[in-house]
Amino acid sequence: MTPGFTGGTLDRADALRHDPVALAAKLDGNARVLALDGLMPEVTADGLLAWTSLAAVPEGAETILLGLDGAGRAHVVVVPPAGTEGTAPAMRSPALMAVLAALQPGEAATYAAARSLLDWHARHRFCARCGSTTHPFRAGWGRQCDACGTEHFPRVDPVVIMIAEHDGRALLGRGKGWPEGRYSALAGFLEPAESIEEAVAREIHEEAGVRVGNVRYVASQPWPFPSSLMIACIGEAEDDAITLDTNELEDAMWVPRDMVRAVLAGEPGPFLPPPPYAIAHTLLTVWANS
Amino acid sequence: MTPGFTGGTLDRADALRHDPVALAAKLDGNARVLALDGLMPEVTADGLLAWTSLAAVPEGAETILLGLDGAGRAHVVVVPPAGTEGTAPAMRSPALMAVLAALQPGEAATYAAARSLLDWHARHRFCARCGSTTHPFRAGWGRQCDACGTEHFPRVDPVVIMIAEHDGRALLGRGKGWPEGRYSALAGFLEPAESIEEAVAREIHEEAGVRVGNVRYVASQPWPFPSSLMIACIGEAEDDAITLDTNELEDAMWVPRDMVRAVLAGEPGPFLPPPPYAIAHTLLTVWANS
Ligand SMILES: [Zn+2]
Ligand SMILES: [Zn+2]
Repeated sequence: MTPGFTGGTLDRADALRHDPVALAAKLDGNARVLALDGLMPEVTADGLLAWTSLAAVPEGAETILLGLDGAGRAHVVVVPPAGTEGTAPAMRSPALMAVLAALQPGEAATYAAARSLLDWHARHRFCARCGSTTHPFRAGWGRQCDACGTEHFPRVDPVVIMIAEHDGRALLGRGKGWPEGRYSALAGFLEPAESIEEAVAREIHEEAGVRVGNVRYVASQPWPFPSSLMIACIGEAEDDAITLDTNELEDAMWVPRDMVRAVLAGEPGPFLPPPPYAIAHTLLTVWANS
Repeated sequence: MTPGFTGGTLDRADALRHDPVALAAKLDGNARVLALDGLMPEVTADGLLAWTSLAAVPEGAETILLGLDGAGRAHVVVVPPAGTEGTAPAMRSPALMAVLAALQPGEAATYAAARSLLDWHARHRFCARCGSTTHPFRAGWGRQCDACGTEHFPRVDPVVIMIAEHDGRALLGRGKGWPEGRYSALAGFLEPAESIEEAVAREIHEEAGVRVGNVRYVASQPWPFPSSLMIACIGEAEDDAITLDTNELEDAMWVPRDMVRAVLAGEPGPFLPPPPYAIAHTLLTVWANS
């Protein structure tokens, strides 16, 4: 089972980002431009992302090289002019997720790259070091300060998402304001100067008061809202007493393995399963079958 | 074996970051301030980080809460005034690494948190969204724009570091300008919209022309120069033909398992082993003993 937003088929063609002459040669009549309505992808009847040509792109527009297809054609996305980003749909709106679910395998990965980069450009038009304006470089995979020359690169924010396990049961939590019945793995941003294993232990303790050890890695997934790397893990709980951080969670509970397995199989149970494109689904599936 | 820069003993006390009143009460005569000479840590004869009190800290200085010790004492680091960061030692200088190697377990983790945060503050005094000045908030774990209110949080940059394996041999590479004889695992920044497994496969193919599958996670480590998360993995190579990217690597070679084991044991061999605090050492050790 492949986590959502993985399996992209474009070659990122890193070398082209460092070779403006070769890049310019690729931005020809064969190049393809991702068709977007705001940040919403346009999708063909076959479940593919729709693309247009560079002919319709305004002179001087900022473009990001997403990569090359098997035929060597450049695939790009155009950065909207500053101030026009307001037309974007809310992050991971139900409408967007429905569109993405209709895409063929790998297409959502291409959209994810475009989406993360567009968001980053929109929020990094100025230099965090000196406050001056910046311009894109490296085929859109960076911005450089017009004044001090500092190079800035897109963020990827690692997030740990995990269950604690104890005596054949998994710890699931429910965030504030979640849809009724939804429980899932706990999650939180990994902080500077901690390992994945330390972040997992810290987050479970902060949110549910449970101490875990023997953290094991399960799977990872990019999550382009705007640019997270979800890292799914399982930790072994020392005991099962829960102390909720009510600023973070509305509830948490221990769910037996056969119950998790039943819920994932579509049977009614004490919680609604995570959607299949979310890595929480992968994580619970791996644990339920372990 | 614990990777370097892990095992910190301070409680990060996330709740205090959201509670300025409780935080202020902790910043009393018991609070401890990390003693630094530039970015160089001061170390006691016992191999501990040295600390001073808040009494010597100038009024209005920006402080970062590193966490609480077992006695509930706040441990902080002071952000140098803008423009004075130039006194910092070069990143991971041999002198710094020698000092860190002399520290007791866990102390380097505390230093790493301070170091990553100081670097981030020094480079994020302005808002990347609008170019205005920012001020610290959340006890130094964020900065907020004085004009547009955008909240900015410290970066953590995930890096994949990996070996390909083929027929009982590991692929090791040598970067340009490395000390003579040094070979290590390949490494590169994970990019937006890729999973850990995809980044591993992409990097090995880009740098050495080798295709890998069945990527498995081994271990992780924070690397505070300035703020990476090293994610160590092993991938199975489809074949052993190497095509070097000479922009990235000076050389690459396949090393048999018994040879890697011998080198790690201190015996002479075709390469110098990575230092023990680097996760490449952990990675090679795990692979050599597998
Ligand atoms: Zn600048
Ligand atoms: Zn601003």
